[in-house]
Amino acid sequence: MSTPRIWTAALIVIGDEILSGRTHDKNIAQIAGWLQIQNIRLAEVRVVPDVEDAIVEAVNTLRARNDYLFTTGGIGPTHDDITVDAIAAALGVPVVEHPEARTILEEYYATKGGTNPARLRMARVPEGADLIPNRISGAPGIRHGNIYIMAGVPGITAGMLDALTGSLEGGLPLLTETIGSRAPESEVADILRTIEQAHEGCQIGSYPFFKEGRSGANFVIRSTDAAMLASCRDTLCDALGAAGWDWTPGGL
Amino acid sequence: MSTPRIWTAALIVIGDEILSGRTHDKNIAQIAGWLQIQNIRLAEVRVVPDVEDAIVEAVNTLRARNDYLFTTGGIGPTHDDITVDAIAAALGVPVVEHPEARTILEEYYATKGGTNPARLRMARVPEGADLIPNRISGAPGIRHGNIYIMAGVPGITAGMLDALTGSLEGGLPLLTETIGSRAPESEVADILRTIEQAHEGCQIGSYPFFKEGRSGANFVIRSTDAAMLASCRDTLCDALGAAGWDWTPGGL
Repeated sequence: MSTPRIWTAALIVIGDEILSGRTHDKNIAQIAGWLQIQNIRLAEVRVVPDVEDAIVEAVNTLRARNDYLFTTGGIGPTHDDITVDAIAAALGVPVVEHPEARTILEEYYATKGGTNPARLRMARVPEGADLIPNRISGAPGIRHGNIYIMAGVPGITAGMLDALTGSLEGGLPLLTETIGSRAPESEVADILRTIEQAHEGCQIGSYPFFKEGRSGANFVIRSTDAAMLASCRDTLCDALGAAGWDWTPGGL
Repeated sequence: MSTPRIWTAALIVIGDEILSGRTHDKNIAQIAGWLQIQNIRLAEVRVVPDVEDAIVEAVNTLRARNDYLFTTGGIGPTHDDITVDAIAAALGVPVVEHPEARTILEEYYATKGGTNPARLRMARVPEGADLIPNRISGAPGIRHGNIYIMAGVPGITAGMLDALTGSLEGGLPLLTETIGSRAPESEVADILRTIEQAHEGCQIGSYPFFKEGRSGANFVIRSTDAAMLASCRDTLCDALGAAGWDWTPGGL
């Protein structure tokens, strides 16, 4: 059996406000979760400042080794919004005004004081790009080849992701099973390693927690093979029980 | 006047659970905020999976071009905790047991069933490393040269950061002033750009918001020069007022 093709994506979060700690990023988790539903694996994330060279380096490295590249942030109307220019530079194409984006902005701002040069900056795209609908605030997202350029404000990003749902080709779904236990992970490390090795294509992640005054761990098994996943889950539950530990399907 | 030396740090967040969306990262914001207080600028962040090659690439790239490198995650007792091995590989040094770390673990687990091979994995360090105290859960963090290897659980990371407070050399403090306004950023984009250009060493970030049914933006001015920062702030407030917009010191 050939190994199933895994589709991967990378994400670049663009913005000084994340690196300064002023703004707590919500897009990594949002996009990670959305990609799982599209059967695309988030392979790596970079957070970079509002600096063209930093964006260009990240774009060119990550677009080459992933099926998809997403960016968030830096597509607004002000001088610190340089994402479009940086991505155009990375691609070696000029920045042009997208006629449909201009129409969208003119309609959106018709009752809000009209367009001005700053607002029309948001109609600029790397040449050859399509638009991603923005149902919330006018200015669209941008798609260029395998690059998806999204807003930084999480609620707007959510709307753009919603518009893209189902439109990206993905691979086999990555299935997961979670088993929770009050067993300290350091008491069952051998069990986890042995069972993972015995189940090809399954990965077991161990995530300890401390809550309600007790410690424990959730063991998350991931695989694209449903039968192997079920076997791995059952073997793990049996092994935990045989060692005298509790286990709870779905996690704690 | 020579440009003041800016000290930079990078952060690598290690863990499949962040990339899958299962766990929402809290360490980027936590470490970003802590570094600001140490007068060290967080220059870039990468989130990488539990894969040795990915960790090695990120470690070697980021440690070379920053004063400090922090990592979070992957230093627990289970088979998916590979951070120490990957960093040792990146550095080209063997993994050794740190005698003091072993003593710490033996004491910590004395009343918790004693040590076992999995628990003693947490005494392994890249050769030449020192320890970072962990007041919460026994297993220490690790420092090797300019690399700080921290826990993934945010509460434990917080304790390790607390232990490091004041021990890292930093540069001039990065000062900030925030001005909030109900002005849409697209109406004042020219003002922002012009004033930033007129104040050397000042950066103005524009962060729009929608709340309580109204839109607006916070303008964050950053500089290491207090006098230039104050001048930039005053000029911005005057310009906003002259254009008929409100402004609120400290932000909205």
